[in-house]
Amino acid sequence: MDLEKKAYPKVLVRPVVVITTISERGIPNAAPFSFNSPISFDPPLYGFSCNPAHDTWRNIQRNGEFVVNVVGKGLGELLHVLETDYPYEESELEHAGLTEEKAKRVKPPRIKEALAWIECKREHHVELGDHIWITGRVVEVAVKDEFWKDAGVIDVEKAKLLCHMGGEFFAVDMKEAKYKRAQ
Amino acid sequence: MDLEKKAYPKVLVRPVVVITTISERGIPNAAPFSFNSPISFDPPLYGFSCNPAHDTWRNIQRNGEFVVNVVGKGLGELLHVLETDYPYEESELEHAGLTEEKAKRVKPPRIKEALAWIECKREHHVELGDHIWITGRVVEVAVKDEFWKDAGVIDVEKAKLLCHMGGEFFAVDMKEAKYKRAQ
Repeated sequence: MDLEKKAYPKVLVRPVVVITTISERGIPNAAPFSFNSPISFDPPLYGFSCNPAHDTWRNIQRNGEFVVNVVGKGLGELLHVLETDYPYEESELEHAGLTEEKAKRVKPPRIKEALAWIECKREHHVELGDHIWITGRVVEVAVKDEFWKDAGVIDVEKAKLLCHMGGEFFAVDMKEAKYKRAQ
Repeated sequence: MDLEKKAYPKVLVRPVVVITTISERGIPNAAPFSFNSPISFDPPLYGFSCNPAHDTWRNIQRNGEFVVNVVGKGLGELLHVLETDYPYEESELEHAGLTEEKAKRVKPPRIKEALAWIECKREHHVELGDHIWITGRVVEVAVKDEFWKDAGVIDVEKAKLLCHMGGEFFAVDMKEAKYKRAQ
């Protein structure tokens, strides 16, 4: 079946992250994103697509720092709060009842309830269509011990990671599978 | 627990796609990618991160066209074949026993065994770290009827979509959940 071209994101399951930034006065902003991807290993670069009118971009333009908070299905019920368009400098974290925690290498806070954190400093940005593709250099990465496997990968079953397809539809409760890779 | 910075992709579950391109002589190439994301709705833009030495980039540089084949766990066992570094113009699709199908608006083929297809023409590219971030304009999107829900989103449970965390570790068998969105 042919789909409208703008429906193309709805055939991809994408990881939900909540990105935290801070204003010049140090007030945190938090917003969920699912248009996001790793880009490079060396240097480690991560990218996400941001509405240019969004407070996240406003803050990153000013101080260049953000934290990618990787979240699980526990955050599902709070997404609509985090994505509500509150006035600038009104903290979505407070509205959602989430907890700020100091990040290691950047000023925006981590979200304590997240499962893993990728701290970034802006490296590059480019306007592409109706969004800005923002690339950050990864300066610190951490994961809650209980969600990290000895094999060196997140435990997707324990972490109960959250992905988005479109609108109200999300993917949860995924199982781990192992497939052979090329050498 | 703090992780090595280059391990950051291993805390994100990312959709696996197989990207098909063709050489100047019309020989198809197919390779799996998981560093990929939607970027913009209007115009519809999709991006992925490609090793600059890869045949996929070589082909896109020449003719600017590619198909994003969205795949399910049925492809898991074939990934190591698709990512094997065969000589240029040796078709990975043949090695993997997959079937070419004519695309609608671009020359590279769709993979018949895929669940959905996003046909793209190159719009932009930028070297970021050790990869090239390639952005394509979506010119056609289609999905197999049986995997599309009336609600206007892929049926993640029927489609059995495949995601990657890192190395041999993948996420499969995800369930659908519905969460409220902000207006």
